Amino acid sequence: MSPTQPFNLLYAQAGGVTAVINASAAAVIEAAREHPQAIGTVYGARNGILGVLSETLVDTTPLTPAELAQLALTPGGAFGSCRFDLDPAEANPAQYDRLFEVFASYRIGAFLYNGGNGSMDIVARVAAAARARAYPLCCIGVPKTVDNDLEGTDCSPGFGSAAKYLATAMRESGLDLAAMSSRRGRVFVMEVMGRNAGWLAAATALAARNEDEPPHIVLLPEVAFDEEAFLARVKAVVERLGYCAVTVAEGIRRADGTLVMEQSHDALGHVQLGGAGQCVARLVSARFDYKHHWAIPDYLQRAAGHWRSATDVAQARAVGRAAVAYALAGQDGVMPAIRRLADEPYRWDVQPVRVEEIANLERRVPPHFIAADGLHVTAAAKAALAPLIEGELPVPTHAGLPDYFQLQLAPQPRRLPAWTR
Amino acid sequence: MSPTQPFNLLYAQAGGVTAVINASAAAVIEAAREHPQAIGTVYGARNGILGVLSETLVDTTPLTPAELAQLALTPGGAFGSCRFDLDPAEANPAQYDRLFEVFASYRIGAFLYNGGNGSMDIVARVAAAARARAYPLCCIGVPKTVDNDLEGTDCSPGFGSAAKYLATAMRESGLDLAAMSSRRGRVFVMEVMGRNAGWLAAATALAARNEDEPPHIVLLPEVAFDEEAFLARVKAVVERLGYCAVTVAEGIRRADGTLVMEQSHDALGHVQLGGAGQCVARLVSARFDYKHHWAIPDYLQRAAGHWRSATDVAQARAVGRAAVAYALAGQDGVMPAIRRLADEPYRWDVQPVRVEEIANLERRVPPHFIAADGLHVTAAAKAALAPLIEGELPVPTHAGLPDYFQLQLAPQPRRLPAWTR
Repeated sequence: MSPTQPFNLLYAQAGGVTAVINASAAAVIEAAREHPQAIGTVYGARNGILGVLSETLVDTTPLTPAELAQLALTPGGAFGSCRFDLDPAEANPAQYDRLFEVFASYRIGAFLYNGGNGSMDIVARVAAAARARAYPLCCIGVPKTVDNDLEGTDCSPGFGSAAKYLATAMRESGLDLAAMSSRRGRVFVMEVMGRNAGWLAAATALAARNEDEPPHIVLLPEVAFDEEAFLARVKAVVERLGYCAVTVAEGIRRADGTLVMEQSHDALGHVQLGGAGQCVARLVSARFDYKHHWAIPDYLQRAAGHWRSATDVAQARAVGRAAVAYALAGQDGVMPAIRRLADEPYRWDVQPVRVEEIANLERRVPPHFIAADGLHVTAAAKAALAPLIEGELPVPTHAGLPDYFQLQLAPQPRRLPAWTR
Repeated sequence: MSPTQPFNLLYAQAGGVTAVINASAAAVIEAAREHPQAIGTVYGARNGILGVLSETLVDTTPLTPAELAQLALTPGGAFGSCRFDLDPAEANPAQYDRLFEVFASYRIGAFLYNGGNGSMDIVARVAAAARARAYPLCCIGVPKTVDNDLEGTDCSPGFGSAAKYLATAMRESGLDLAAMSSRRGRVFVMEVMGRNAGWLAAATALAARNEDEPPHIVLLPEVAFDEEAFLARVKAVVERLGYCAVTVAEGIRRADGTLVMEQSHDALGHVQLGGAGQCVARLVSARFDYKHHWAIPDYLQRAAGHWRSATDVAQARAVGRAAVAYALAGQDGVMPAIRRLADEPYRWDVQPVRVEEIANLERRVPPHFIAADGLHVTAAAKAALAPLIEGELPVPTHAGLPDYFQLQLAPQPRRLPAWTR
């Protein structure tokens, strides 16, 4: 591309979506429009890198400012997401040839990929391939994950809102649990997302203002599950309060590395796997005959646009805007990361980090955030997580439900031959 | 009690609690305070009728207007609830003797019991016992149930908020589900409360503005589960959209009356029961190898104070105030019921119904609200349910979470001998 002509920008979303990823998308589009001399059209790929490969691109130009504002408050991934890894360039050069045919055909000078650990690997690969081909491309990662497990950033957009939702759910369920009188003890288990990192489980501890409030136990994937210690704590809490609320991350494992999952067989002998929450609830009921309930918020926890953290939304927008600024500055192979400047009052800014340094890594809950007995989190953890759930935002509604945006941009007419996966 | 002296009022909560039962409680206390010539002290029993029997009563006089306002927006049952049925008076006269000893000791002239079908039975029994003893007592039921299965009322306080929460959850989860590209079909199942009545499941249909939006299938306990018809519909939806969202009520049954539950055996041969949502999700995955997720909101759906229906809150307050008005008017053995006056715009008022006529009955989703194929609800159902989820209310927060009220009234010193259950 000529340096005097504007380049076009391509934005795409990848991995599990969040309540705020569309706020990053809207911020990218808004920021790009502020620089018409440098940036021409903002395209979006449908379903992440798959949409690039298949040349399924939309032109975001028709979106009005009002529509962008509505997009910003809509959960889910409006452009569509994917779980798809690029092959190594040496192993599959044709895949990269195709990517750059698409980039060239649409005069793409900046590629912004909004995702997590794996997506940062794609950013690094595409950046390296562009350099190898001397194709003038700025590849930039935009962070996003409810799991909060991206390295190089103090937190990840998407996490704060999921954390706020789950901490609220624990406080509210705890009030329900506390209301019922029963001579049998009662146990409530909430299973939250987190295969390897227990950030979301840890955040539910924010619901408790003292040790009598739920959750009374927090089980993290970072801690080997000790059934006896867990059951002893449940018993102690039930004997003190009459009930016990437990948060369990879906990925908790025993000391031998096996997942804590209910494994059973159906009538035909097929193995059936229940989740960690169900398994833990059953362990309690088998030992103590307490009444047990379990909740699995599943998608609800990462899509709760009606109850987002204002801090999280601000950070999602900030990384979107920063990514555009980096593209304008020619910063290639970076991700805008949240840097914590102060705890109280919480202050943060955005700084670029190199994607190769963080791709595919997983940031787990550190030891000083985990209680010595492994059954809860520390005050330090709560202090660190507290600001991330702060702030509420108005939710436009229609007929009693959130009035979310539906992206209805038709894909661009195809310029290249069809791609076969 | 002398007609010239004010009587005292006793309020208690029973059954599964809701996001708005405390709004009824606050309204009862506020309304009673407006009539100091007629009503003396408003007592609350801890844990429903159990608190009456055990003489565990609190005096609500210290609650300030600001505290009552905070109580009104707090989910759960602040006074504590119970699942406890009175014996028939003939079978256990001592139980009734005890109740009336407590009533007499506290000069109780009105007993307001805030609950569902079973609680209305208690109201009827206590009213009959008072008449039999010539004890001057107004027994009044205050309706409450997320299940919406109380007879004699157009809807029940608690339902609208749970319905709003679940319809929102379905809309939001649907956006998450729709975002992910996959060559495998994807199915999301949300299991909602409703053992015998499918009102909450039906209400999730409000999330869909057209037939392509989730939920694509709604399974009600009122309809015998037809596995083949269900699987065929799932397949058709997935082939059209790539995914399918299903709401399933926890209590769906097959034509032979058996619950749709995953039944399996653990390593020791114990029978393990998974819920209907898990079972339905597994059926889909076993047949089609679609990727499947299931969510079980459990307590979250009836405790979601952060996302209540303003209509529901208004109705919860109205039945609380009406109950006090009935007590003042000497109307015994009644429940304030919501009467629908007009659909659009929705208008309603509150009318007394006799508790004997509705106690222990279950109002189920009627046939004209159920689609002919039994796999969804009708437009008539959606039109009827729509107004009940309307309206939002501000949620006071502290540190990013709803700032709920904690009732901290010490029980009254005991006046009577201890009661043994």
